[in-house]
Amino acid sequence: MRQARLHPLDAKRLIPIAASGTRSYAFLALLLAMAAGLGFIAGARDRFRVSDVCFGARRPASPDISIALSDGHTPQKCPSREPHAASPPAAKNVWAPLSSAEILDVKEWLLKPSQGLNLTEGANSTDSDNIVFLIEHYNPAKSDALGFLDDSKSPPPPYARVTINHGGVESPVTRDYLVGPLPTSSTTTIRQLTEIYHREDIPFNARGVPDVISMFGALGKTMAPLEAALKDLFNGTIKGDLLADTFTAGPSGGWGVNGSSRRYWVSWKVNAPGSWLLPSNLYTYVDSSGTDPSQWSVVKVVYHNQSFPSVSSFLDAYTNNSIVRFPLPSFGNNTWTTRKRIGKPRELDTLPGPRSVSFAGLRFKVDKKRGYVSWLGWGMYLSFDRDMGLSLWDVRFRGERIAYQIAPQECLVQYTGHDPVQSITTWMDRFFGMGMFTKDLFPNYDCPAEAVFLPATLYHPLLGPITRERAICIFEMDTGRPLTRHYGDFPGESGAVKGYVLTVRSIATLGNYDYLFDYIFHLDGTIEVKVSASGYLQGGYWTPDQADYGSRINRNNMGNVHDHVINFKVDLDIAGVNNTFRKTTSVVEPVSLPWLDDDDWRLDGPNKEVLQHKLAFTYVDQEGDASRVSYPANFKEVFAIVNRDAKNAWGSERGYAVRPGLSPIHNTITKSNRMLKNANWAAHNLAVSLRKDTEPSSSSMWNLHLPGDPPVDFDKFFDGEDIAQKDLVLWINVGTHHQPVAEDAPTTKTNLAASSFFLAPVNYFDSDIAMESLNAITLDLVGTDPTSAPAYQFDDNGVPQSFNCISDAPPSFSYDPQVG
Amino acid sequence: MRQARLHPLDAKRLIPIAASGTRSYAFLALLLAMAAGLGFIAGARDRFRVSDVCFGARRPASPDISIALSDGHTPQKCPSREPHAASPPAAKNVWAPLSSAEILDVKEWLLKPSQGLNLTEGANSTDSDNIVFLIEHYNPAKSDALGFLDDSKSPPPPYARVTINHGGVESPVTRDYLVGPLPTSSTTTIRQLTEIYHREDIPFNARGVPDVISMFGALGKTMAPLEAALKDLFNGTIKGDLLADTFTAGPSGGWGVNGSSRRYWVSWKVNAPGSWLLPSNLYTYVDSSGTDPSQWSVVKVVYHNQSFPSVSSFLDAYTNNSIVRFPLPSFGNNTWTTRKRIGKPRELDTLPGPRSVSFAGLRFKVDKKRGYVSWLGWGMYLSFDRDMGLSLWDVRFRGERIAYQIAPQECLVQYTGHDPVQSITTWMDRFFGMGMFTKDLFPNYDCPAEAVFLPATLYHPLLGPITRERAICIFEMDTGRPLTRHYGDFPGESGAVKGYVLTVRSIATLGNYDYLFDYIFHLDGTIEVKVSASGYLQGGYWTPDQADYGSRINRNNMGNVHDHVINFKVDLDIAGVNNTFRKTTSVVEPVSLPWLDDDDWRLDGPNKEVLQHKLAFTYVDQEGDASRVSYPANFKEVFAIVNRDAKNAWGSERGYAVRPGLSPIHNTITKSNRMLKNANWAAHNLAVSLRKDTEPSSSSMWNLHLPGDPPVDFDKFFDGEDIAQKDLVLWINVGTHHQPVAEDAPTTKTNLAASSFFLAPVNYFDSDIAMESLNAITLDLVGTDPTSAPAYQFDDNGVPQSFNCISDAPPSFSYDPQVG
Repeated sequence: MRQARLHPLDAKRLIPIAASGTRSYAFLALLLAMAAGLGFIAGARDRFRVSDVCFGARRPASPDISIALSDGHTPQKCPSREPHAASPPAAKNVWAPLSSAEILDVKEWLLKPSQGLNLTEGANSTDSDNIVFLIEHYNPAKSDALGFLDDSKSPPPPYARVTINHGGVESPVTRDYLVGPLPTSSTTTIRQLTEIYHREDIPFNARGVPDVISMFGALGKTMAPLEAALKDLFNGTIKGDLLADTFTAGPSGGWGVNGSSRRYWVSWKVNAPGSWLLPSNLYTYVDSSGTDPSQWSVVKVVYHNQSFPSVSSFLDAYTNNSIVRFPLPSFGNNTWTTRKRIGKPRELDTLPGPRSVSFAGLRFKVDKKRGYVSWLGWGMYLSFDRDMGLSLWDVRFRGERIAYQIAPQECLVQYTGHDPVQSITTWMDRFFGMGMFTKDLFPNYDCPAEAVFLPATLYHPLLGPITRERAICIFEMDTGRPLTRHYGDFPGESGAVKGYVLTVRSIATLGNYDYLFDYIFHLDGTIEVKVSASGYLQGGYWTPDQADYGSRINRNNMGNVHDHVINFKVDLDIAGVNNTFRKTTSVVEPVSLPWLDDDDWRLDGPNKEVLQHKLAFTYVDQEGDASRVSYPANFKEVFAIVNRDAKNAWGSERGYAVRPGLSPIHNTITKSNRMLKNANWAAHNLAVSLRKDTEPSSSSMWNLHLPGDPPVDFDKFFDGEDIAQKDLVLWINVGTHHQPVAEDAPTTKTNLAASSFFLAPVNYFDSDIAMESLNAITLDLVGTDPTSAPAYQFDDNGVPQSFNCISDAPPSFSYDPQVG
Repeated sequence: MRQARLHPLDAKRLIPIAASGTRSYAFLALLLAMAAGLGFIAGARDRFRVSDVCFGARRPASPDISIALSDGHTPQKCPSREPHAASPPAAKNVWAPLSSAEILDVKEWLLKPSQGLNLTEGANSTDSDNIVFLIEHYNPAKSDALGFLDDSKSPPPPYARVTINHGGVESPVTRDYLVGPLPTSSTTTIRQLTEIYHREDIPFNARGVPDVISMFGALGKTMAPLEAALKDLFNGTIKGDLLADTFTAGPSGGWGVNGSSRRYWVSWKVNAPGSWLLPSNLYTYVDSSGTDPSQWSVVKVVYHNQSFPSVSSFLDAYTNNSIVRFPLPSFGNNTWTTRKRIGKPRELDTLPGPRSVSFAGLRFKVDKKRGYVSWLGWGMYLSFDRDMGLSLWDVRFRGERIAYQIAPQECLVQYTGHDPVQSITTWMDRFFGMGMFTKDLFPNYDCPAEAVFLPATLYHPLLGPITRERAICIFEMDTGRPLTRHYGDFPGESGAVKGYVLTVRSIATLGNYDYLFDYIFHLDGTIEVKVSASGYLQGGYWTPDQADYGSRINRNNMGNVHDHVINFKVDLDIAGVNNTFRKTTSVVEPVSLPWLDDDDWRLDGPNKEVLQHKLAFTYVDQEGDASRVSYPANFKEVFAIVNRDAKNAWGSERGYAVRPGLSPIHNTITKSNRMLKNANWAAHNLAVSLRKDTEPSSSSMWNLHLPGDPPVDFDKFFDGEDIAQKDLVLWINVGTHHQPVAEDAPTTKTNLAASSFFLAPVNYFDSDIAMESLNAITLDLVGTDPTSAPAYQFDDNGVPQSFNCISDAPPSFSYDPQVG
């Protein structure tokens, strides 16, 4: 029963299950009960200075320390590795995910017969039952949240978003509901949640799938007619025995246009580690519409570029030998598709590399209970949801709210290739759930050794509440580069500010790909949002006629060209909610300068002209084409959210700019039926719309399979509303045009597969506010004797970078995630 | 005599020297004599494994250690912080800078009367003398270097490039010479070096300036006629007394079109720390042509936007009160222009932040004598020159040469603004010397605490050889992000490789700006080249009509819009020297797919078409427009150097791509007379030309002042030569379009003012070669009992990330650079 340990929602790969093997989730419930889970407790410690710990006598030395280092002094033990307790601005995180108890409270309430929902427990359900697919927090109206945060009003009561797959009704349908207030009581109600979507109901064929294993398990049955042919052609079997089966399935996406059917191609891949890279060049087109898996069937077959419009036509060709047979792909011993170390060790790699240590203790603070983090002027609440995982709320810097919300919205991958799957596949991973597929981070490897982990609790349709104890990690690091520095001759000109950053990270593994979401906070008020990709390619079968679609990466294997585009919602509030979208472009103009002579060699024109950059400012007043932007060639334009009513000390509009970082791209193919209306956010680099509680997201989990009639049609956000000095939201894309190469095997590398943007102050402050840093040095030339060498006095603000103490070793590696 | 400590080549700022105050450089010579200078000696140590040091008993514990950490074990002292000795592939660095002794040898040889050069020692010279402006190594022909490295031939004998400013001849001129072989002997000859330039002689008006202080000192005299007016208008003086003078000068650049004259505008700035930001809104146009400073004069004056075609017309207007007077700018107490800490300390910033420590010892190796560095498969020689500072040579990875040379070429800044200086200024800092203006790095701030510093020795025209002991720093760091990772269900799918990088850094301070040059080596064969800028803006005087040219940053102060563009030469050798420039673009085409039905919803066209990305490969056969590239919108094209005769295991052409990183821009204004022909490299993002020993550089130190007839005209490199499977060189730009904001004061921030590119393998290898890493983990699910929690076994390759030991504190801060 090894497969019992496998992820039950392994979405893009078929793990065949024998028809007779009904899965029991009893052991999962047991595990669930075993899962305690508060992890570390943030220690309450007073603020102290380095000198107290290391150099001074105010703290007694531990008696068991007697070591003299080469510089002669005796270091003491380092302070605790635990973070200090944070002090959130409000006593409640109004965006916090529901706890396990809150989820169960809602679930019990829903299951009451008096609600009339006729629900079946997910773990015992089939597609023909009514099940609770999702229970999670529903964010309060922004006005209510701000009333609580800024105007001392009561916190808005929690509500739950509840998704029910109504498989047990005559016309099966999926619906979203709003349930609250919570905890449930006599005042709690349920109503359909429609105001945030562009259609009322979700067609059942586009529904979220509680257990992709079960769903694809039924595919095993559809392959039965091909059994003999498979055995002969590939010496392969598909019987539903994970350990013995030769093939596993990689489906295409999406699965329909408007919900009328659910059909997809399946690439049959070698059932081995790294199967994503191991296609056999056999494809079946499957109809899995409706609620009855016994009706599902293979519609078409493609074998080595030979198309058969039915199973029988394929079998006929096989039987009468009109099929062109191809050699078997190599099946076993595919160690190149694993993460097993290869090759000769490199010199000195037998040693661990450098490790970042906060010798004086961690400088960021955490309120684990409330999900709040603060660091050197920054503070933010964290939330987490099924669809997109980690999000940030009420992000403040030096007491001022910069962003009300920063949250990923959708994660698109669009492939190309000459096979039935790669040629048409577009994934939008919100369907699977970036949050649901956020796994526990590997300590010391996914995050530095001294990172602090935070948990995330989600509702799983089969398991109920599940908690990832290491869903999020937080760490400070020295970028190794001064944030500012100068060498100058005058007193006070020389010096540097150390370039520390705080990173909040989560990693979602969507089948083959791993997405690292990093929110990186800088000392100057800049927020960097970076997504890095690793994991396996969704690989194709290499033949020479595939050369236009990617690179060969092994004998029978290729990496297919694809675009990644990931959309973020950034709700900036610049000195309040009323803001304006400003574009500043730099145009080249001939300018006459009165002080230049007619014969000055610098003149470019007949009228004493010199070519000059001149800035042109545009304020976008209306939602529409002007508020949706692709970066111009050579990046000659700066896009900012400004408050025209708030000026800095020098009279400039306070603002924050969106500065492109790595790989500032948008999607290439936007006019295809595959993505007719469901991902129009991907067509530009950024867009600005009026912020509305009724437009919380640029996508939905159901958009993937409803390109013709999506629940969220991003274009509809841009309906000409006035956006001058209004509450605005930015929709910003990152991504990569991935032309895979052999070096993408076994896994893609984060150093190249990364994309980012910066939210950076533009005249928001009066000067560089990072000059507040104490971890900085200023140098002055001293002495006046010209016959002696120059000498400098320096001021390190009482924070010696040579601070040392004896640190505990980081914990040894361990990994023990909850199932789910 | 405080000014004696000031940098004698403070290029863009006038430090007025009283006419009577002849500077003595005697004390500098003394310092020079005192400067010993080998610094650390790389320790010879055997390779060892962590277990030997920390956990095992093979090394005896130091007797003075008795400390128990909370995990119960007793750590030992860490190994030495010194780097291991490297083993260069060849016994000689044929690109090494000349040593002080070699420089002096050449200088003595040149000064011999028998050479007939009639030279004057620089320290005692005037512009009317013949002086040796430069002595430095001249790189050997590539064929000679490769003969030595690859074919066991003798190393090419060293030659020196010698620049002589012939000020003492009837028609003063500057010429470059080649002197060698070295050391000097009876076989040593001198000949003019012309084959690398597009003109034979350098007009004397475009010559390099040995001492900008002296040159601008003469400006003090030109201001004498304005003394009374200055006193009245500004309560200011310019008498040549650095400590007392009110103003200092910021000149414009360049200074001429073809060498016929040397004229520039000067912005008079408040003589205080951060003077770069403190213009007074007074400008003079100075003619300093020729060799006789007594002939220099102010030609024109602009005072608060009032133009006067002569000093007398200005004085007339001043005397008859027709001048419109403006209030004084605030002079003193400009603490906002210093690096003094401001504001309230942030919470916990009283503690030092995290520090990177190589507990097991440094993993990079250094041969300081030869200027060679190696790390985890990488190896490279370093060189250093006056014009552009640090360069890398014979960069190899896993034994194969990737790049013959990586070297910056030029550093352009082009300003805009409505004043005489900002409106016309274009700097090309090779004139001043990026190497010459590389200062000693600040330990612990400019580079991490455990960085290793390497020196650089250069010839200074007045001081002779000077050595910067901390010109270069080298450090390894953990990027905090795994290079690759995956979470998967199958054995061997889960795990991560730690993302270490090695950085080689140098920082040049060109007057106001500081440029950080980072060469960052990744484990997968990727080289990242990144330039970050900090330091002061070249600020303008703010008036409301300047709003089109930048942002106000203080009461009378603005940051003017400008472009930075920095050119790199990258001489890749992909599996040998014969390579081809390949462009791979992704076009969108409708493709018919035989397996799709007419009624499939995914079809985009009438012929069962689906829109697909298809790759289009172009091989550029000739130098010309096709070999000069601007990145297309949305970055849909990949540019690579490939070897069409070398295939990886899968039959793909081995290659390296140039991948744009941060801020992939080129210059905006390219058609101005200011830069008619002297910076045509700046017009594109990258260019490829045939590699020639006669085209070693895209610019020269004299290009700045000769836009109409530059010594190096980059366009002439592109003369249609065959570049199919030839030795190629890439010319790649980084830069920023800088629209300054208030947050750029006092200094620009490296996090936003950064630009980069990656040189990344494209099918160069057969797979991701970073999978060789031992600092990596692989996880396997173990156990088969479904009632127990999932358990993982892991393999950390014997390199525990929890390794711990007691490290020495880093050295306390010290800063003691040599004058120069």
